Amino acid sequence: MPHIPLDPDLPGIRGAMAFRPETARPLNELVEVLLRGPHPLTPGERELIATFVSSRNCTQFCHNAHGAIAAAHLGGNEELVKQVKTDYLRADIGPKLKALLNIAGRVQQDGKLVTSADVEAARREGATDLEIHDTVLIAAAFCMYNRYVDGLGTKQPADPAFYRERGKRVAREGYVSTSKEYVPSVAAVASRT
Amino acid sequence: MPHIPLDPDLPGIRGAMAFRPETARPLNELVEVLLRGPHPLTPGERELIATFVSSRNCTQFCHNAHGAIAAAHLGGNEELVKQVKTDYLRADIGPKLKALLNIAGRVQQDGKLVTSADVEAARREGATDLEIHDTVLIAAAFCMYNRYVDGLGTKQPADPAFYRERGKRVAREGYVSTSKEYVPSVAAVASRT
Repeated sequence: MPHIPLDPDLPGIRGAMAFRPETARPLNELVEVLLRGPHPLTPGERELIATFVSSRNCTQFCHNAHGAIAAAHLGGNEELVKQVKTDYLRADIGPKLKALLNIAGRVQQDGKLVTSADVEAARREGATDLEIHDTVLIAAAFCMYNRYVDGLGTKQPADPAFYRERGKRVAREGYVSTSKEYVPSVAAVASRT
Repeated sequence: MPHIPLDPDLPGIRGAMAFRPETARPLNELVEVLLRGPHPLTPGERELIATFVSSRNCTQFCHNAHGAIAAAHLGGNEELVKQVKTDYLRADIGPKLKALLNIAGRVQQDGKLVTSADVEAARREGATDLEIHDTVLIAAAFCMYNRYVDGLGTKQPADPAFYRERGKRVAREGYVSTSKEYVPSVAAVASRT
């Protein structure tokens, strides 16, 4: 049971966003820029970072939802997503992404744990300032989204199949667009109170 | 030394935001809605929640900056801000805010630690669904801002006096407005690359 009344048909962050459209708007814009904006890392690679951090935070809704979106970007490769969650150093991904996941794992615990050696290791594999910046911010942002989803006690389906179809759709259409179907406009909320 | 080249005249989150205006925009909009939008909790009370979480995360820039903004909202009462950081249960604040700080402290560690008993205790002191929602999201959001500031190794002045004047200004003018002086427009960034 969620700690506040949320729409039972909207699991995870969706119910929370529908409850508070004023904050849903910047939350969706942030993830849209970070995971789908023009970037040297592919959307699939950035979704893997988000999935990895959510998995480390043990937030079932987020690591399943973003894992499904990552898989959709990666030709349906759910095995790769699972490998990144459980043992990314042996996953079939490039050395630059591994070095960025190492940084993301530090940030997930505490930003102060990122060392110059971690950053240098990423640079040696070709990571740019933008990629380092965005890895830190993606990891930090998912420490927020995960706490938001968990802290309200939202409903978090356990079955990965639940996330598969929607993952394909978000991969295709994006966060801001798909959120419009469940986040009411601020004006609509003002008029209903 | 920051892990990526940031403007040395812009400490903390300001340098990071100037580096990446595309993400600075939703980050500023989120904090503007959460800490300054229309609300049953005063801006001073909401800044105290942000300061408390930043203090628990030991992020010097954020707990000093938001502590100064909180003090500006609270008639310059820096002692109260210090008390909330160090031992909020004995601070001269109401029982509802204490119950909300308890929830914020759980979220700072892990959202899953928030119990129904924590939420019921806040409700008994008069907390509404909106206040509970926003306390969870403020705490979650500062777990992001703190990790962002720490994870990039930003410059974080130690002297509280550094934060005092600016705290008054942000309390008066807000985040979106004051950030315009150091975050370039997205168009300006596109043209400089």
